[in-house]
Amino acid sequence: MDISARNNLKGRIKNLKKNDISAEVILDVGGQEMCASVTADSVNRLGLKVGDEVSALVKASSVIIGK
Amino acid sequence: MDISARNNLKGRIKNLKKNDISAEVILDVGGQEMCASVTADSVNRLGLKVGDEVSALVKASSVIIGK
Amino acid sequence: MDISARNNLKGRIKNLKKNDISAEVILDVGGQEMCASVTADSVNRLGLKVGDEVSALVKASSVIIGK
Amino acid sequence: MDISARNNLKGRIKNLKKNDISAEVILDVGGQEMCASVTADSVNRLGLKVGDEVSALVKASSVIIGK
Amino acid sequence: MDISARNNLKGRIKNLKKNDISAEVILDVGGQEMCASVTADSVNRLGLKVGDEVSALVKASSVIIGK
Amino acid sequence: MDISARNNLKGRIKNLKKNDISAEVILDVGGQEMCASVTADSVNRLGLKVGDEVSALVKASSVIIGK
Repeated sequence: MDISARNNLKGRIKNLKKNDISAEVILDVGGQEMCASVTADSVNRLGLKVGDEVSALVKASSVIIGK
Repeated sequence: MDISARNNLKGRIKNLKKNDISAEVILDVGGQEMCASVTADSVNRLGLKVGDEVSALVKASSVIIGK
Repeated sequence: MDISARNNLKGRIKNLKKNDISAEVILDVGGQEMCASVTADSVNRLGLKVGDEVSALVKASSVIIGK
Repeated sequence: MDISARNNLKGRIKNLKKNDISAEVILDVGGQEMCASVTADSVNRLGLKVGDEVSALVKASSVIIGK
Repeated sequence: MDISARNNLKGRIKNLKKNDISAEVILDVGGQEMCASVTADSVNRLGLKVGDEVSALVKASSVIIGK
Repeated sequence: MDISARNNLKGRIKNLKKNDISAEVILDVGGQEMCASVTADSVNRLGLKVGDEVSALVKASSVIIGK
């Protein structure tokens, strides 16, 4: 499946934490750190673990420019 | 001002286009491309132009993980 | 690629309109109408056209409940 | 109140879980499953429970197209 | 209809502009300015015009704190 | 840093709650209440506490108009 989201950044999972509902996934993306808040169920369903090569997908309308 | 958004990626503007309402800002972020949809007014107010060093700010709840 | 977004609704494109920057994609999803605002570039890149079977992907944190 | 959000999908609550801060609401929408991440306070305030007929409201700018 | 979105700010429309697809609605909210990017179709459907008393609805997960 | 987000509402923190992952920040904005869902880590990193003068930042594309 190809998707309309314009941002697809390749990275690696550095850290993961979750409780019964929420999870936080910390990525290394070319030396910069990214953080994704997803549901704990998504972490379980995708079987995410530290070291996995993943994509950080972001819709262009969710990006703010700071200068 | 420091902000709660967990993603702050450093990049450089590669391309910019806008009409009377909407604008699209294309960034180079460590060799990966990013795209931000912002209002034309924001591009004008910040004086954005190709070559500017900027930040791409994204709230963690807007990041989807693909694997 | 499997993604963390929890909503993946199957539908068919009923209508499409775009200008130089922005586009609007109207879907039929099991008899209910959905609308996606995406960039014109995404419509072009995916080659979207009326009649296409597509998925409407939405992160759970973007869904509001009305009662 | 009528709202500008372009997506208003009618569904029924199939499952609900929450902790002290976060909640997850699982809906059946015409045979397809949807998931909404909302605050536990919203679940309490709206008195949401399994079986309720509700609407899943999504702004068009939050919808990604997959093909 | 009551909704789960935790932010419901009362304001008045100060300015409106739109093209064939996109629109921008500028509000006065207790002396502070707000801006909403919505589709031109939503402006037409709701019949929005300068002077209207409206609500600016925002999901809590879309709010960033700056300090 | 100046940012492209069009909404920057000045307020004061009235209440705060968090668990190990998620947090909720309740603000008073000119007499109206706002709520931000952020990560617990952001609350810790910014040192947020009741009484702080802060900004509620919202991208225009995240605002829904209700009438």
